[in-house]
Amino acid sequence: MPQRYAYLGPQGTFTEAALRSVPDAYSAEHLPFATVPAALDALRRGEVDAAVVALENSVEGSVPTTLDELATGEPVQIVGEVHLPVSFALLVRPGTSFADIKTVASHPHAQPQCRRWLGEHVPDAEWRAATSNAEAAQHVADGHYDAALAGSFAAARYGLSTLAEDIHDIADAVTRFVTVRRPCPPPHPTGTDRTTVVAFIGEDHPGALLEILNEFAMRGINLTLIQSRPTGAGLGSYLFWMDFEGHVTDARVGEAMMGLRRVCADVRFLGSYPRADRVRPEIRRGTHDTDFTEAAAWLESVRSGQPHP
Amino acid sequence: MPQRYAYLGPQGTFTEAALRSVPDAYSAEHLPFATVPAALDALRRGEVDAAVVALENSVEGSVPTTLDELATGEPVQIVGEVHLPVSFALLVRPGTSFADIKTVASHPHAQPQCRRWLGEHVPDAEWRAATSNAEAAQHVADGHYDAALAGSFAAARYGLSTLAEDIHDIADAVTRFVTVRRPCPPPHPTGTDRTTVVAFIGEDHPGALLEILNEFAMRGINLTLIQSRPTGAGLGSYLFWMDFEGHVTDARVGEAMMGLRRVCADVRFLGSYPRADRVRPEIRRGTHDTDFTEAAAWLESVRSGQPHP
Amino acid sequence: MPQRYAYLGPQGTFTEAALRSVPDAYSAEHLPFATVPAALDALRRGEVDAAVVALENSVEGSVPTTLDELATGEPVQIVGEVHLPVSFALLVRPGTSFADIKTVASHPHAQPQCRRWLGEHVPDAEWRAATSNAEAAQHVADGHYDAALAGSFAAARYGLSTLAEDIHDIADAVTRFVTVRRPCPPPHPTGTDRTTVVAFIGEDHPGALLEILNEFAMRGINLTLIQSRPTGAGLGSYLFWMDFEGHVTDARVGEAMMGLRRVCADVRFLGSYPRADRVRPEIRRGTHDTDFTEAAAWLESVRSGQPHP
Amino acid sequence: MPQRYAYLGPQGTFTEAALRSVPDAYSAEHLPFATVPAALDALRRGEVDAAVVALENSVEGSVPTTLDELATGEPVQIVGEVHLPVSFALLVRPGTSFADIKTVASHPHAQPQCRRWLGEHVPDAEWRAATSNAEAAQHVADGHYDAALAGSFAAARYGLSTLAEDIHDIADAVTRFVTVRRPCPPPHPTGTDRTTVVAFIGEDHPGALLEILNEFAMRGINLTLIQSRPTGAGLGSYLFWMDFEGHVTDARVGEAMMGLRRVCADVRFLGSYPRADRVRPEIRRGTHDTDFTEAAAWLESVRSGQPHP
Repeated sequence: MPQRYAYLGPQGTFTEAALRSVPDAYSAEHLPFATVPAALDALRRGEVDAAVVALENSVEGSVPTTLDELATGEPVQIVGEVHLPVSFALLVRPGTSFADIKTVASHPHAQPQCRRWLGEHVPDAEWRAATSNAEAAQHVADGHYDAALAGSFAAARYGLSTLAEDIHDIADAVTRFVTVRRPCPPPHPTGTDRTTVVAFIGEDHPGALLEILNEFAMRGINLTLIQSRPTGAGLGSYLFWMDFEGHVTDARVGEAMMGLRRVCADVRFLGSYPRADRVRPEIRRGTHDTDFTEAAAWLESVRSGQPHP
Repeated sequence: MPQRYAYLGPQGTFTEAALRSVPDAYSAEHLPFATVPAALDALRRGEVDAAVVALENSVEGSVPTTLDELATGEPVQIVGEVHLPVSFALLVRPGTSFADIKTVASHPHAQPQCRRWLGEHVPDAEWRAATSNAEAAQHVADGHYDAALAGSFAAARYGLSTLAEDIHDIADAVTRFVTVRRPCPPPHPTGTDRTTVVAFIGEDHPGALLEILNEFAMRGINLTLIQSRPTGAGLGSYLFWMDFEGHVTDARVGEAMMGLRRVCADVRFLGSYPRADRVRPEIRRGTHDTDFTEAAAWLESVRSGQPHP
Repeated sequence: MPQRYAYLGPQGTFTEAALRSVPDAYSAEHLPFATVPAALDALRRGEVDAAVVALENSVEGSVPTTLDELATGEPVQIVGEVHLPVSFALLVRPGTSFADIKTVASHPHAQPQCRRWLGEHVPDAEWRAATSNAEAAQHVADGHYDAALAGSFAAARYGLSTLAEDIHDIADAVTRFVTVRRPCPPPHPTGTDRTTVVAFIGEDHPGALLEILNEFAMRGINLTLIQSRPTGAGLGSYLFWMDFEGHVTDARVGEAMMGLRRVCADVRFLGSYPRADRVRPEIRRGTHDTDFTEAAAWLESVRSGQPHP
Repeated sequence: MPQRYAYLGPQGTFTEAALRSVPDAYSAEHLPFATVPAALDALRRGEVDAAVVALENSVEGSVPTTLDELATGEPVQIVGEVHLPVSFALLVRPGTSFADIKTVASHPHAQPQCRRWLGEHVPDAEWRAATSNAEAAQHVADGHYDAALAGSFAAARYGLSTLAEDIHDIADAVTRFVTVRRPCPPPHPTGTDRTTVVAFIGEDHPGALLEILNEFAMRGINLTLIQSRPTGAGLGSYLFWMDFEGHVTDARVGEAMMGLRRVCADVRFLGSYPRADRVRPEIRRGTHDTDFTEAAAWLESVRSGQPHP
């Protein structure tokens, strides 16, 4: 089990809250880093054994920095995931009232999730970007800004008061974090697994995405996330981040992934790991492991001219 | 090499002409049978080592009896094919002129290929069905009918004259015959091979044909023949006879066939064999054997957590 | 209502039995013709007002002559269909016993449907081809052959005895006949309709069949028959006869047919008509006529820059 | 022509540079707004006639705020686009040298595009988030930070010096901006147009994306951007922003859009407008406007029972 976990600090971030909910990390050391790339680089260099990073948010969408780092940086592997309900608190220096608030700071991801609430409660306040919500809280404590959107757990750490809690424009919003390690064998299948791959579409291959989706659809594999990102090689050149049901050791998943490997300019496998929501996939007729085993035995028999059942 | 070949007799049929063009059969014994099922049953019982049967005709279409026998009878295997140009002669008793002809006999397959010619040259003659063109010639020799449509090679055998030659409504018509044997390893790939399978669609599975075609299309495999036949289980229940480019030992063909095996209620492999027309398939990017080998090695490496190129 | 119907004669054929079950034909004149093409030509020339022809059989498959005549002859239109259970009788001259039977005659379509039965009951008899089952009965009456496979209704007409009844290798076999007329507006939709088209695939367009099936699948239209036939332009050049659920006035059917028209080298519409089995299609979400109407109104509004719901 | 254009200010942003390159805006009034939503709201309220907003960047990807505002806010319409090369300058107070730089501020989008350059040239500097690059420049002028990544055109305005120019990790990076207006008829087609729609996938419809891509693929329409965004209704509920070749008045585009309208829970049309790169689409056989017109005429004729060519 990992002894040292990296996370996006400082203390008091949602990432730290996510890390605290990872069972394997209970007795491990938690090390804050200033940015997601910094946390991942520490992992790559061996300074930590694992890192927890935010991947997507049900309101704000995927986190570009994380996707890009995992998709194109030196390879690491996702070994687990955590879903954390989104709920912000409005933190202020003790004594501050709503009427006093001229500026509200937060990570750029927090602002869109509370836009409506801010418009109703502090309509005249201006928003200010911070590198993390915890940094925003620090800025409030330092007197640079009047209020910060952050997790309520950050209040105590920065000596702030909670003026409002449970702030979010959309109920049931969730952020998904993943635990990543250096390349290693994937965790054993649990029956409720998710697999992540990144597909790089070659040159001018307009139909490639359709072919890729076909590889999954033909084997009854549902995608749970598809996200395009530019590869940096010009508008129109994309990679596709895809999360889907199943484990790389499932026959249907393995064959689909080999299909991607043949269709795409490149494919990066980013891991198979237990789903946080424990949703069990419906396996379509003809795509169980036994169906693949039987079909392979049949092919072997017809290739060799032997009788077969 | 087979010592005894069965064919649809009597002597003088097109099937015999096809058999005469099979190199492996030059020095073998040629045994005529009254029907295609009889020839195939002799093969199954071991009375002959091979049989040559007509499969499809570029005018009249596939030969239902042959398709059904190969698709659903006791298994045999196609090991080769022959293409024979279609060209009929009008055979009569010596002395017969066009004006004398009141009846023209032939196998039911010959009549539609010469309908227009008959309408122009013997517009008042009635057509009569015979079990084979050679039998039609025999009927003419016996005086039952006035003329027979048959291969010109049948004239001498039945003591008839050739009143017209090279009869066919459509130029370049071709009949395709196949050589079948008892189950055996397929002939080695030549690079210009064809493979035949029969796919049985299960119960009420309306989209199955689309799924099957997709298995081929995704791997760049062109079909050269697709023919539906009733399974006998009611209108709407079909099997599909499919000929396609490639050899069962090709990786792309093997994976497509495993896909069919998983999608279909049943699949029968009927053989991989050299194409008579020696057309070389265009192999799509990502579907060469080496692509499959590389993808399998990649999958193995990601499953085991090893680094990969 | 048609006053004169053509059918494949002579009297006593299954086609005549099918014609007798067509309500609109009860009080009409029934005219026998020697061949399906002859019946259809009489219709085209205006000598009759309608024709009833066999299209497919659940054992023997589609009837090539009918398919080819309707697909490529001068255009006519299918306006109705009849399903007739398949059941043969073995007709003999009075006094003939099973032991006396050396030859059994029938239309080539009848033989495969009774092959097993014949093998069990008259294993030594040879089969003889006749132009129709009724003609076979005539040949028996004339003493040329010993027995005929035909409908039991043919016995009285030809002065024959019925040695066995209800002969068929496969239970519940059915033959499907269609009523055709000269080009006319299709019958009104009934909610349980079938539509027939013939698609001609252009030159070397290997993926065309997949595209065609896609046009149907995308709109939730189930095919009830797909049958390839050579166009005569060489092995590998095919037309596809397709029967499917729905009526040409249904929006989803109309759009799919326009798709075929654009994809194919040519398309022939052969008619929309009530299904004999009255199976009601399941209409997929988003493909009701109202969905198409709504989508067209929406498109109109966005094209014109008007607000839309 | 619009008299007043909104843009993401303050003066000196890349958006202002983009706006300056819009021919129709040369003689119009340019009004800066603090955020993209603020600019769009001014448009909706009629305070301005048009707005220019950043949509995607070839390095950093799509701009979530813009996508979400256009996809789900009160409807507006895209009427044009501008591509602007990405090139940052490092702006400092006069006299500052590389060694003096402890902090570098920028909009969060700029940082990933210069990460490598920063690591090489100012490896010890910490990055600070700003609401816009121009604001970052203001912060530098105010002494809060040591350097700002911004367009070189911002230096003069904020009294700063340019310590380095043409900074970008990836050559040829481009940002795409769009001009939006209140709902109106789309600009006339130019032959090199792009169309934008947003597709909302209903409930649990796992195969919907494949169906949508099929609607485009079947009509030979290439997508130039596909981007998923959460709808806010939970992880796994997405909308898809899609840019594709062609104009809404093209028949193939119209029919594909009606297909989307029927398949999806909802579709929003965001505009057809000339492409900045003037790439002309390849129109696939069978998908020209004339093909659709011909097919519609054919359908009309077969529905009415009239002869057709």
